[in-house]
Amino acid sequence: MESRKDELGLMNDVYTYIETHRDEYIEMLQKMIQQPSVAAQNHGMTEMAAMVESLLDGIGFEGEQYPTGGFPVVYGEHPGQSAKTLAFYNHYDVQPAEPLELWEHEPWSGEVKDGRIWGRGVADNKGNLAARIAAIDAIKKVRGHLPLNVKFIVEGEEEISSVHIEDFTHAHPDLVAADGCIWEFGGKDFEGRQVLYLGLKGICYVELRAKGAIGDQHSSIASSVPNPAWRLAWALATLKDRNENILIPGFYDKVVSPTEDDLKALEALPDNSEKMPKQLGIEQFLLGAEGMERKKRDYFLPTCTISGFLSGYTGSGAKTVLPSTAMAKIDMRLVMDQDPHEIFALLRKHLDDQGFDDIEVVMIGSEPPGRAPRDSPLAKVVAESWKELTGQESIVTPTSQGSGPWYQLSTAFAIDACTQGAGHPATNAHAPNENIFVEDYITSIKQVALILDRFAES
Amino acid sequence: MESRKDELGLMNDVYTYIETHRDEYIEMLQKMIQQPSVAAQNHGMTEMAAMVESLLDGIGFEGEQYPTGGFPVVYGEHPGQSAKTLAFYNHYDVQPAEPLELWEHEPWSGEVKDGRIWGRGVADNKGNLAARIAAIDAIKKVRGHLPLNVKFIVEGEEEISSVHIEDFTHAHPDLVAADGCIWEFGGKDFEGRQVLYLGLKGICYVELRAKGAIGDQHSSIASSVPNPAWRLAWALATLKDRNENILIPGFYDKVVSPTEDDLKALEALPDNSEKMPKQLGIEQFLLGAEGMERKKRDYFLPTCTISGFLSGYTGSGAKTVLPSTAMAKIDMRLVMDQDPHEIFALLRKHLDDQGFDDIEVVMIGSEPPGRAPRDSPLAKVVAESWKELTGQESIVTPTSQGSGPWYQLSTAFAIDACTQGAGHPATNAHAPNENIFVEDYITSIKQVALILDRFAES
Repeated sequence: MESRKDELGLMNDVYTYIETHRDEYIEMLQKMIQQPSVAAQNHGMTEMAAMVESLLDGIGFEGEQYPTGGFPVVYGEHPGQSAKTLAFYNHYDVQPAEPLELWEHEPWSGEVKDGRIWGRGVADNKGNLAARIAAIDAIKKVRGHLPLNVKFIVEGEEEISSVHIEDFTHAHPDLVAADGCIWEFGGKDFEGRQVLYLGLKGICYVELRAKGAIGDQHSSIASSVPNPAWRLAWALATLKDRNENILIPGFYDKVVSPTEDDLKALEALPDNSEKMPKQLGIEQFLLGAEGMERKKRDYFLPTCTISGFLSGYTGSGAKTVLPSTAMAKIDMRLVMDQDPHEIFALLRKHLDDQGFDDIEVVMIGSEPPGRAPRDSPLAKVVAESWKELTGQESIVTPTSQGSGPWYQLSTAFAIDACTQGAGHPATNAHAPNENIFVEDYITSIKQVALILDRFAES
Repeated sequence: MESRKDELGLMNDVYTYIETHRDEYIEMLQKMIQQPSVAAQNHGMTEMAAMVESLLDGIGFEGEQYPTGGFPVVYGEHPGQSAKTLAFYNHYDVQPAEPLELWEHEPWSGEVKDGRIWGRGVADNKGNLAARIAAIDAIKKVRGHLPLNVKFIVEGEEEISSVHIEDFTHAHPDLVAADGCIWEFGGKDFEGRQVLYLGLKGICYVELRAKGAIGDQHSSIASSVPNPAWRLAWALATLKDRNENILIPGFYDKVVSPTEDDLKALEALPDNSEKMPKQLGIEQFLLGAEGMERKKRDYFLPTCTISGFLSGYTGSGAKTVLPSTAMAKIDMRLVMDQDPHEIFALLRKHLDDQGFDDIEVVMIGSEPPGRAPRDSPLAKVVAESWKELTGQESIVTPTSQGSGPWYQLSTAFAIDACTQGAGHPATNAHAPNENIFVEDYITSIKQVALILDRFAES
């Protein structure tokens, strides 16, 4: 270890500070996990916003809450020596912890066990927010100043499709302005290589609702009384066929095909066809897709996913009931240049045209897709910082398969953005037993410190 | 009232006893409701079986529990003056009370309010079981003996498709033997006419189960990972089309068309096309069917009903999850001469043929359809007893739309069966706020007493 620290030169003092204060930084993250903050359930949100504000105050950022129509954006900034400005985009909300019975570690505990920190939101994205705060704390403690101007934009609605972030960016373009933006998530792959994403898919998340008789009825009268569960099953079957073709007319019209450069980037991506199915417990990937075929599906094609459905009796055994309502949640991930509001209108028209005007469609959340150019100064610095710290390469990926307000916070303002973080391929983000490795968290703190230093000079 | 009581002649003493002991009989029913007995959830079943055994003991029937593979059958018999034997078929299990939040009266209270008795199972069928016990109590108290031999067969699995009743009838044909069998349910229509059913549909109740990855995943990987909710939606859509045609090959092969006599019976049935849709809160009956078209659908065609489905996240707002499992409960009501085990095999083959061999099909419960001949001595007595007590006619219906072990307990032994009870068209059986009218309960006690008297002489 000594030899690498020597190579790293000027950062050694900061790294040493981080190592000697690792318990304090782990404890800070645990406190953040112990405060539930589920936007979808309005659970602990006020308390979490106040905690983030206070954490930013604690590192001299004068945190402030900006009201939105929903949960506030917590913002803070700090001047530095260089004229350059780096923004951190994070969120203080997390996914619901349900189904609780599948957790082996209490979801709001922040328990440290088997070399990992466990809890809802630790990977997505409280671990990364904590690492960034810790890195700034360490630099300031060691040097007394920051190498460049830093901003935190910490929203409270990322897990519910960032419903108010566009209004915030329109109202406060000065707060958004920066030379680069480090995204809320990031991490390494199975081999320890950093996975750098340069964009996000868009999303159109809707709920379909069907109604039948008033109240659940005895199923014996199903011969004459409409069944909303059937209406919904039939409607769902018109949305996508068994070969994964989305059947909503016009859905693919604005999809941009990958460029030659994009295809080269895909070619360079490692193929996890062997490890992932085993880890997921599936026999093969969807449609048996492999290699470039699967990569193109993953990064350059939209999806249409049933994220949940519910109707009637779902307990054990038999209940002979004719349900009065049926509901399905549909998650559509969009690629450039699909527009979520256009997609919503196409879905509504499709259902009407198919005779399903009785089915209500409710928009739950939407975000356009967004992408940053390859080889931006920021992406370069983030890749080099990983190489310095771990000796490993980075895998530059044109876009993530996930969604977020990338378009609103970076593409719309021509700000280069890039991912970074303490994630790994088995964090169970959005699922029970979410976790990150303790050592990845410490490395991430060091990496952020190094990025601040190098991006100031870039 | 005096004039009718005079007409009724010999029963007046019994009726008077019933009227003066009405509070005691209502209290007995309330105690039965206050003991939950949900077979599907194994909730309170042991206690309820013991309560029924004790109630039968209390009227001199020497109640006894006969073990089955599941919940025991409670049986009791009592000799009478005539050589004839009348059996009562009842059940001590009830439907689950869920969804609890929709009850305006505590489901296990037996609350008396607005002239009704409320609670889970009061209509289906604790009110009828209580009325029969009360009628025998009253006759014995007034006369000291019963006019004919009486048997009670009270099973504990009617709401879970009477899974062991066939074994019971095969093992104990002597206990089943009778000259007639009064069925567990019955009641009046909107106009106060007694609705007499002479048969029941069969049932094949199955659960379809689809599996995807181990544990719920982030929906961003839905581009490559199978989604069990889609598998199930697609599979469901192959079972029935939007015109209500069940698409399982061979499903209709054994369906017997209504005879001329059946059609006459249907013609005679009143048409509730005006009142029922309003009561149910629907615009019109399924497919806009009216008159004989709807009657034929209701009584002589099988159904295929989604009674419940569940997958993924079903709470409020957005959770971007790729579900790991999906489940649907399918309730198929069968008509003569469909066989539930054949139907199960046809469904399995259909799913396999359609490429859904990944979807598990689990048989939850099954019963063959059963029907009794029209104008049996018992049906006549039950119709006449209603006329005597209320001055109203009876509507003789070839079959109910519901299911139960009619075939096993009557058709298979050539025993004439017939329905009777305290029901009305808005009891909310199988739904929240189940209820019967107090006066219907008292009338039902009197009717049972009268039937015992008249069937002894028939």
